[in-house]
Amino acid sequence: MKNLIIASTSTIYGSGYLDYILPTLANHFKTAKTILFIPYARPGGISHNEYTAIATKAFKKINKNVVGIHTFKNPVEAINKAEGIFVGGGNTFVLTNQLYVNKLITPLQEMLKNGTPYLGTSAGSNICGLTIKTTNDMPIVYPPSFNALALVPFNINPHYLDPDTSSKHMGETRETRINEFHHYNTPPVVGLREGSWLQVSGNAITLKGELTARIFEHNKKPYEVNPETNLSNLN
Amino acid sequence: MKNLIIASTSTIYGSGYLDYILPTLANHFKTAKTILFIPYARPGGISHNEYTAIATKAFKKINKNVVGIHTFKNPVEAINKAEGIFVGGGNTFVLTNQLYVNKLITPLQEMLKNGTPYLGTSAGSNICGLTIKTTNDMPIVYPPSFNALALVPFNINPHYLDPDTSSKHMGETRETRINEFHHYNTPPVVGLREGSWLQVSGNAITLKGELTARIFEHNKKPYEVNPETNLSNLN
Repeated sequence: MKNLIIASTSTIYGSGYLDYILPTLANHFKTAKTILFIPYARPGGISHNEYTAIATKAFKKINKNVVGIHTFKNPVEAINKAEGIFVGGGNTFVLTNQLYVNKLITPLQEMLKNGTPYLGTSAGSNICGLTIKTTNDMPIVYPPSFNALALVPFNINPHYLDPDTSSKHMGETRETRINEFHHYNTPPVVGLREGSWLQVSGNAITLKGELTARIFEHNKKPYEVNPETNLSNLN
Repeated sequence: MKNLIIASTSTIYGSGYLDYILPTLANHFKTAKTILFIPYARPGGISHNEYTAIATKAFKKINKNVVGIHTFKNPVEAINKAEGIFVGGGNTFVLTNQLYVNKLITPLQEMLKNGTPYLGTSAGSNICGLTIKTTNDMPIVYPPSFNALALVPFNINPHYLDPDTSSKHMGETRETRINEFHHYNTPPVVGLREGSWLQVSGNAITLKGELTARIFEHNKKPYEVNPETNLSNLN
């Protein structure tokens, strides 16, 4: 009985950290007094303490305590006892590597499959997919594997961005990159625009927020789906 | 006695494949009748044959033949006998993986250190650095290592892009990503804008083209260097 929020971003333009999604989180984490925060992705290279302070400040607005996993001697036990878990964004390679180094992949999978409420943003959402092969991040560390938590039967591309038709830059568009992914991999990819999230409740996977999402399936033309679409058959 | 061109891009906005650099290439490859093309990076997932046809068409303008490494039974021998080598852009992970799979890392290093003229563009330039950890590409395959050819004592960031100050997108800027790289790695990074290249002649590494390049050193503020700057002391 999964209970996950897989969000494109922590922050939407012009508002504070997690602000756009706090009302949803108040309900999502209603059974949790304290949220276990996993700050491993270290956005901008900030320390685990600094990052945890940012999450703490946001969750205070909905009367939740936050505790960083790095403050526990035994991180596996921290996960097993958590009332709710939040994995923040930053660098997906750094995050994935730390999860492997600390042997947290299996404990996380077990707890999240059994209903511990979870929030992932950006890198914390990438790891909910089958692999991290559709991250936008720079590969600044070499993790032991690109395999992720596989909590949904597809891959996530957070911060999904439509092509800028006025650009003179010759780098690949996001759509080109995901199409290249499908030359070597068959799983679908959900392009989640900033402000969108997936709500996973048991077997239902529902697109939330006000925007459409872009779906990339192997050997199919990409297409848009509306909010409230159930994506559980996408695999 | 190295003899390398490490270019940000194959193509600049509004002109054809390699057009901006063809006069330079005519001189660079003056001793070569035939260029060995390594099409492994497969931009947009195109086939090795399709990609080789694109390179062939461009090099015809300077009277060079092109032959794809995929047409050789023994790719190591193809490298050892090459009069000149061109590694085109596409996906750096796919390229790096294929170089490892085909055991070409060491043969390439040996030939390129001994003077075989080389052109790399984009992904073909990333692999000239110490590692591929500063590629912009999506990690669509898992290579056995991020270590690259180490032909220069730093990393390359091709297609370097200045921050778009008007953007409302919350994804990281290129500069933020490279700064994150330096939280886990110490080598310098050369941000090469489209139209720029490094000319490596023996021990000299000279910035070419009309644009400045952005240099990122560990624990230092990023700075710009002018064309004709010698970067051989950057390490």
